[in-house]
Amino acid sequence: MCMNEIHEECGVFGVFGKETATVAATTYYGLFALQHRGQESCGIVVNDDGIFRFHKDPGLVNDVFTPQVMASLGEGNMAIGHVRYGTTGVNDRTNAQPIVVNHIKGKLALAHNGNLVNSFELRQELELQGSIFHTTSDTEVISYMITKERLNAPSIEEAVNRAMNRIKGAYSLVIMSASKMVAARDENGFRPLCYGITEDGSYIVASESCALDAVGAKFIRDIRPGEIVVFDHEGIRTITDHCEKVKPTICIFEYIYFSRPDSRVEGRSVHDARVKAGACLAMEHPVQADVVIGVPDSGLDAAIGYARQSGIPYGIGFIKNKYIGRTFISPGQKVREDKVKIKLNVIAETVKGKRVVLVDDSIVRGTTSARIVKLLRDAGATEVHMRSSAPPFLYPCFYGTDVDSQENLIACNHTIEEIRDIIGVDSLGYLSLDHLSMLIGTPNGEGYCASCFDGKYPTEKPTEADKNRFENKLSERRKNQDEESQ
Amino acid sequence: MCMNEIHEECGVFGVFGKETATVAATTYYGLFALQHRGQESCGIVVNDDGIFRFHKDPGLVNDVFTPQVMASLGEGNMAIGHVRYGTTGVNDRTNAQPIVVNHIKGKLALAHNGNLVNSFELRQELELQGSIFHTTSDTEVISYMITKERLNAPSIEEAVNRAMNRIKGAYSLVIMSASKMVAARDENGFRPLCYGITEDGSYIVASESCALDAVGAKFIRDIRPGEIVVFDHEGIRTITDHCEKVKPTICIFEYIYFSRPDSRVEGRSVHDARVKAGACLAMEHPVQADVVIGVPDSGLDAAIGYARQSGIPYGIGFIKNKYIGRTFISPGQKVREDKVKIKLNVIAETVKGKRVVLVDDSIVRGTTSARIVKLLRDAGATEVHMRSSAPPFLYPCFYGTDVDSQENLIACNHTIEEIRDIIGVDSLGYLSLDHLSMLIGTPNGEGYCASCFDGKYPTEKPTEADKNRFENKLSERRKNQDEESQ
Amino acid sequence: MCMNEIHEECGVFGVFGKETATVAATTYYGLFALQHRGQESCGIVVNDDGIFRFHKDPGLVNDVFTPQVMASLGEGNMAIGHVRYGTTGVNDRTNAQPIVVNHIKGKLALAHNGNLVNSFELRQELELQGSIFHTTSDTEVISYMITKERLNAPSIEEAVNRAMNRIKGAYSLVIMSASKMVAARDENGFRPLCYGITEDGSYIVASESCALDAVGAKFIRDIRPGEIVVFDHEGIRTITDHCEKVKPTICIFEYIYFSRPDSRVEGRSVHDARVKAGACLAMEHPVQADVVIGVPDSGLDAAIGYARQSGIPYGIGFIKNKYIGRTFISPGQKVREDKVKIKLNVIAETVKGKRVVLVDDSIVRGTTSARIVKLLRDAGATEVHMRSSAPPFLYPCFYGTDVDSQENLIACNHTIEEIRDIIGVDSLGYLSLDHLSMLIGTPNGEGYCASCFDGKYPTEKPTEADKNRFENKLSERRKNQDEESQ
Amino acid sequence: MCMNEIHEECGVFGVFGKETATVAATTYYGLFALQHRGQESCGIVVNDDGIFRFHKDPGLVNDVFTPQVMASLGEGNMAIGHVRYGTTGVNDRTNAQPIVVNHIKGKLALAHNGNLVNSFELRQELELQGSIFHTTSDTEVISYMITKERLNAPSIEEAVNRAMNRIKGAYSLVIMSASKMVAARDENGFRPLCYGITEDGSYIVASESCALDAVGAKFIRDIRPGEIVVFDHEGIRTITDHCEKVKPTICIFEYIYFSRPDSRVEGRSVHDARVKAGACLAMEHPVQADVVIGVPDSGLDAAIGYARQSGIPYGIGFIKNKYIGRTFISPGQKVREDKVKIKLNVIAETVKGKRVVLVDDSIVRGTTSARIVKLLRDAGATEVHMRSSAPPFLYPCFYGTDVDSQENLIACNHTIEEIRDIIGVDSLGYLSLDHLSMLIGTPNGEGYCASCFDGKYPTEKPTEADKNRFENKLSERRKNQDEESQ
Repeated sequence: MCMNEIHEECGVFGVFGKETATVAATTYYGLFALQHRGQESCGIVVNDDGIFRFHKDPGLVNDVFTPQVMASLGEGNMAIGHVRYGTTGVNDRTNAQPIVVNHIKGKLALAHNGNLVNSFELRQELELQGSIFHTTSDTEVISYMITKERLNAPSIEEAVNRAMNRIKGAYSLVIMSASKMVAARDENGFRPLCYGITEDGSYIVASESCALDAVGAKFIRDIRPGEIVVFDHEGIRTITDHCEKVKPTICIFEYIYFSRPDSRVEGRSVHDARVKAGACLAMEHPVQADVVIGVPDSGLDAAIGYARQSGIPYGIGFIKNKYIGRTFISPGQKVREDKVKIKLNVIAETVKGKRVVLVDDSIVRGTTSARIVKLLRDAGATEVHMRSSAPPFLYPCFYGTDVDSQENLIACNHTIEEIRDIIGVDSLGYLSLDHLSMLIGTPNGEGYCASCFDGKYPTEKPTEADKNRFENKLSERRKNQDEESQ
Repeated sequence: MCMNEIHEECGVFGVFGKETATVAATTYYGLFALQHRGQESCGIVVNDDGIFRFHKDPGLVNDVFTPQVMASLGEGNMAIGHVRYGTTGVNDRTNAQPIVVNHIKGKLALAHNGNLVNSFELRQELELQGSIFHTTSDTEVISYMITKERLNAPSIEEAVNRAMNRIKGAYSLVIMSASKMVAARDENGFRPLCYGITEDGSYIVASESCALDAVGAKFIRDIRPGEIVVFDHEGIRTITDHCEKVKPTICIFEYIYFSRPDSRVEGRSVHDARVKAGACLAMEHPVQADVVIGVPDSGLDAAIGYARQSGIPYGIGFIKNKYIGRTFISPGQKVREDKVKIKLNVIAETVKGKRVVLVDDSIVRGTTSARIVKLLRDAGATEVHMRSSAPPFLYPCFYGTDVDSQENLIACNHTIEEIRDIIGVDSLGYLSLDHLSMLIGTPNGEGYCASCFDGKYPTEKPTEADKNRFENKLSERRKNQDEESQ
Repeated sequence: MCMNEIHEECGVFGVFGKETATVAATTYYGLFALQHRGQESCGIVVNDDGIFRFHKDPGLVNDVFTPQVMASLGEGNMAIGHVRYGTTGVNDRTNAQPIVVNHIKGKLALAHNGNLVNSFELRQELELQGSIFHTTSDTEVISYMITKERLNAPSIEEAVNRAMNRIKGAYSLVIMSASKMVAARDENGFRPLCYGITEDGSYIVASESCALDAVGAKFIRDIRPGEIVVFDHEGIRTITDHCEKVKPTICIFEYIYFSRPDSRVEGRSVHDARVKAGACLAMEHPVQADVVIGVPDSGLDAAIGYARQSGIPYGIGFIKNKYIGRTFISPGQKVREDKVKIKLNVIAETVKGKRVVLVDDSIVRGTTSARIVKLLRDAGATEVHMRSSAPPFLYPCFYGTDVDSQENLIACNHTIEEIRDIIGVDSLGYLSLDHLSMLIGTPNGEGYCASCFDGKYPTEKPTEADKNRFENKLSERRKNQDEESQ
Repeated sequence: MCMNEIHEECGVFGVFGKETATVAATTYYGLFALQHRGQESCGIVVNDDGIFRFHKDPGLVNDVFTPQVMASLGEGNMAIGHVRYGTTGVNDRTNAQPIVVNHIKGKLALAHNGNLVNSFELRQELELQGSIFHTTSDTEVISYMITKERLNAPSIEEAVNRAMNRIKGAYSLVIMSASKMVAARDENGFRPLCYGITEDGSYIVASESCALDAVGAKFIRDIRPGEIVVFDHEGIRTITDHCEKVKPTICIFEYIYFSRPDSRVEGRSVHDARVKAGACLAMEHPVQADVVIGVPDSGLDAAIGYARQSGIPYGIGFIKNKYIGRTFISPGQKVREDKVKIKLNVIAETVKGKRVVLVDDSIVRGTTSARIVKLLRDAGATEVHMRSSAPPFLYPCFYGTDVDSQENLIACNHTIEEIRDIIGVDSLGYLSLDHLSMLIGTPNGEGYCASCFDGKYPTEKPTEADKNRFENKLSERRKNQDEESQ
């Protein structure tokens, strides 16, 4: 999937540092490694002995954090950061994270990845008490819940612990008070969160382990579903009151698409999971062919798996233009633009006169797949056999994955055979629901959420009112996306 | 006074429009005319049938509101805007106005000019109830007070009316709900606020009448101290519950320095007030001289008055570089810079061999005055007689004027004779407190606040805690200003 | 005249320095003081022992020369700079000055103010020899003429001296070779050029003396028409071969409009010249009235003169929005914009119920004047008597003044009486040609060029071919200007 | 090779269009596809019936050509463009291409890829005739040679033809006169150049065929070494006077590193050439191992070839951060940055406990290779066997490849065994000179230039004077690069 048809909403990062001179730079590099989790806006908050300096703006990390901005952030003993996906309106800046608020006990900064299922109710409850909201994000709701508890709780971590009784859904949080950094993960563990330590003894919290690698930190472990980890000058402490209340259900799509292949999520290599998915595909949907190619970048690992299992040679089928950034700005003349062609070009030698197995991580609307298939046929492929390492998308996700609305999802409206026709391939095979468990190697298919594929939601669903809000949000995004990437 | 030693914090503007296509542009032009009231940041909120689109950023109106940003604001039936003075840190953006919040009854946008005297107490009270604050501004406190009342009040205007029982100090507000624009002024009427109507029937609210002129609106009247004016699709309504509770005390410095000479404030021409101040000076501090010159821009009107009253010819003594914007960015090389010289140059022909009366609106630290006097002497002036159309600054202002801290105010630390020596003039005369009333023509000196000159505060003063906060804020600003303008 | 209807094309500046660390900054401040001579583009070339570092771009000095750009220019023993008026196309950057070229004897940088009358012929001659041109500017022609001569001339100054035999028209040049700075002025002396010395012994060359003031330099003298002044490590030398070949004819419009009032041009104060023009107007066109006001900024000095001579009180009639920069960028919504109203506002108290004498420096197309008069009448002026301190514009200028094309010049198409009607005034008076000499105090009206008023050109005129080019250029500019300022 | 240790200087593109509305956009997309050939600056010139509008600036295509800039370029019947590598100084803009000049017969725009060997002599000859140069580029020399010939030649193409008798070295040119587009290639054919046609009949010229693909054009053929192709309203014509004078010697490094794998150069697929190089490496330097990995991006194809030939499985060893643009701007804090680590991360699962064959396209200084090897060992690789698909760099290139200076080239200063030690691998193998011919499949190793590897220069070498200049240029670049990428 190369056209950004699916989005997750965030990456979080935090450093509780020994070297005060570098907490901002460390956060910068951490966010840079997490950029794939959100390209619309980013932010860093530096905590300099209780003084919070911050900057957040729409744009990529490397564009937003110029040397001047970095200089203005200065030194500090800790820092947290965030990268975010969002719509591209002017007001987008308002929803950029981390959120920084002042409350009765001082200052608080929050960075959040995920989606609550009861934010509508909590928001209404708060508004009825007179609260005002500056943003439309769940993060502000969470900050309210925590600061409310903080009125009576003896510590920020206890306030987080109590607030977790109220907030439902998916959240991986990094929170910073005047003197502490607190990381917390919802009891289902939908979104990943791990921590590590640098050579100089600074603790690092990050959405994915690849960010630890980028800042030279050693991976210690994943934060457990429901766990709260506190970092302060006394060291690390952990609160496990919310652990093991429910069965963990990590989002399976983290393995299929979101996370970087070089990350380990819940102890399992993302690359390995994808290679296994490709191997499963080869077993489920074998075909006689001459070459296996993947759609860059997220289809390559599964293509390797398919090739190894099947014995069909792996080839490089496409070159992706590496100067494509977040938004390819159309130059504004009325030229018949084929965005797929601008991003991808076929290496004709790889496919000409050959029967091709084309592996992608998933199929969303089908339009991009159809164009890619046409590129292959134009380059001389005699047969094209498409394989998707994800099952068909059929249901909305309430935990932070922004798949398309059901009316646009090709699998909601067509049979497999119809889809095969629409995208123009000789055969089509999806990874089956039964084999999803092989990606992460759990014995009986437990331990993950695949609700976007099977409709089995591990938590209560949002109320109608909230779902509507959700749908509206989605369709607004779709509109933006249509303009932008089609 | 040409070196920005005194700052007020804001200008506000609102349009309740008939022509939906132009509310953003009208607000743009209005803010452009009010730019002198705040050059650090600006913002516009457009209300398009309940959908609020906004943009705010540090910078001048003409820089922040590029054609692209204007296009993104789109059309609407009303809009409000704000220009603000503030420190130049990165986080400055957070305090930019208008503030836009979501509360139980929908959306609210606020633009505020002034300073509360009980914001510290109100903030503490709110925080104890669990409220969180995103900014350090009084405006967020006001928005809380209003939305709290809105829980039970039948309308936004009634919520404003009730909130005015709690908020104390100086405030001129323009507020926008989904369907109404509300303007309100504190019962003392410290800061100006007026409204008018355009040819097409749109209502305009603005800090100064010059903004009505700029958008082609006819001045209707000043909003009365304590009055609330409501603009909605039914027309205009007014609430006067808070009127005439106390004697109005408009800030006298609005006439001396803040407001544009072409504005009318409380029915009196600012230009006229300044000319009268100059004439008073001529009567109080006569001198034999050959030419009267003013320091551009705010000393020119009083110089005209001095010249007319005394019969001494008026001359153009200085050329001010008209490309000096808000911040003259030093090019960064270690050159011995004389900022006064870069901004002002003497017209030698006007002063050479002459006895000069030099009129300025006020004297703050005295350093700028000393440099200006030196320029005149270097150009050949044989005598320099300085006249200040404001009395000596002696006390802090709690109503939104950011004069220097007392340790820096030359009049707090020196006698008139010493000041004369320090700035190097042959004679020095300040407008006396007794004559301040002549500026605005009230019979017995009533109707204005001159607390920065006489220490008589028309309201309770801020508590100690708040005053400290105030002082800290001030000294932080001073630091910034020192770097910037010295 | 406040609407930029007339443009001259440049200001030049040079420093031959003692303090190597500050030549770029000194040039920066010098150009900042000359900004009124050209606001479209600017450039600085630093000569660091033969290595030339430069930067030039469209924009104001303060915008183009950011601290980063200044840092990139580094230190040097000399520097030259330029501000330029030009059209606002994308290719404008190409014509930005100074020009930097490499030739057989090394490097050469040129900054030029003026207009040649034989550039078409010279260009053709050069092109026939195979020369190629990167720009459309006269400056590149001059650089060719000098470098051609340099092939045989023993020194750069001798090459300039010989080139001056070939180039005809108006030019004030500052030239920099690896080791010398050379200033030269055409034999008519159309455009001003002077030099001075700083306290540390650096020599400064500038178009106007106000730039010497800005960098703390003492004025030494104007460079003579036809003179070449050489600055190198041995000191100053002068070449006078071209002096006194013809009668000097400095552009009279430098006094009326171009130069800053605080400058001295050819030993005469610009402010004084304008005051005298106003006094002449009062004698030529007396009227009974209550107040004299000037159109900011260039009409103010003459208004003072009219008031003094007539005895009618001087008043401040307008406030000009001081945040108006070079280009007021329209916010892009379809609002009925009155640019005059946005830039100027009347002080009603000054004119209401009064008979007003309105003094402006000149009348070009008449549309701006008509709007200003309407503003006065709307504010309650009972009579408006307009006085122009320049005679009517009737002829094109070939020496660097970009007046409007004749079809747009109101005086080319209407009688005085018709103009009076068009702009809606009760009486109208222009300074007569006979009194122009009083501005600069020469006994018999000699020593200046007033060809735009009287059609008497002191040099040969450009050939037809070139005039066509000239006209095309003009009409292209007009088109731009119409979009921009109407 | 991932750290930009080698640079070529350009990509050229031209369109002679049928659809006037899209020539600028087509050039935009073409340059975007050629971005890998030069990331420092870019430019587009649109020819609108003889009026040339252009824009060029330092930066990537997508940053420089904003919608506003594109709009300013407007429509036209043809356009040419250029992407360029260069140093990052302020004056870099001056050397940006295409060059646009005016000469006796009108306008001319040139875009050039390559390096002349006699530019020093030509420049000197021209300067002695009085020519001046605005840039330090060969392109300006070429433009002079062509315009000089144009004085007598009957057409622009004949002028190019005659000029080609004088200019020696490597050049692929796209030239645009008022009515024609001319493409030309030096007689050795060092740099690639091809053309094609779009569906609507517009002719496209481009450095690489991938740019034809990007704009939907069908590849027609490579332009022959020494050939001139003329595109005008009458169609295509070709001049072959310079063809087959010498044996073609296309730069072999185009296949190894410069060109995109999806391009066909001289009829041969770049991807295929690299796969073959990898297969050769497997035959020349076999080793027992568990996995073959390539260094992204340019080592991947050869790794596929090595894996196929050897039977050792191909694996994905690294993830390259895809948000790395041209210049990764260091955030400016003193953090111990490992740029290799920020750009590349190992997928531990691929290499842990395994014997790894690491394939890269070349080894320049060796420092990057050493870091990459360390990453692999840290991730658990038990053995690392490095293979370079290029022979050792030993000689300077005079035809446009900017390899490092010899003092920095590891192969100039160390034996293979020493290099093996320095970069820390268990075995090291370079592709031998003898096998280079296999890349492009010529029978007896003819038809390419490998002078950087074997020192056999197919043309005269630059004179000493020019070589010095060359060396200086190189060391200056090195300095820049050291700051930037280490």
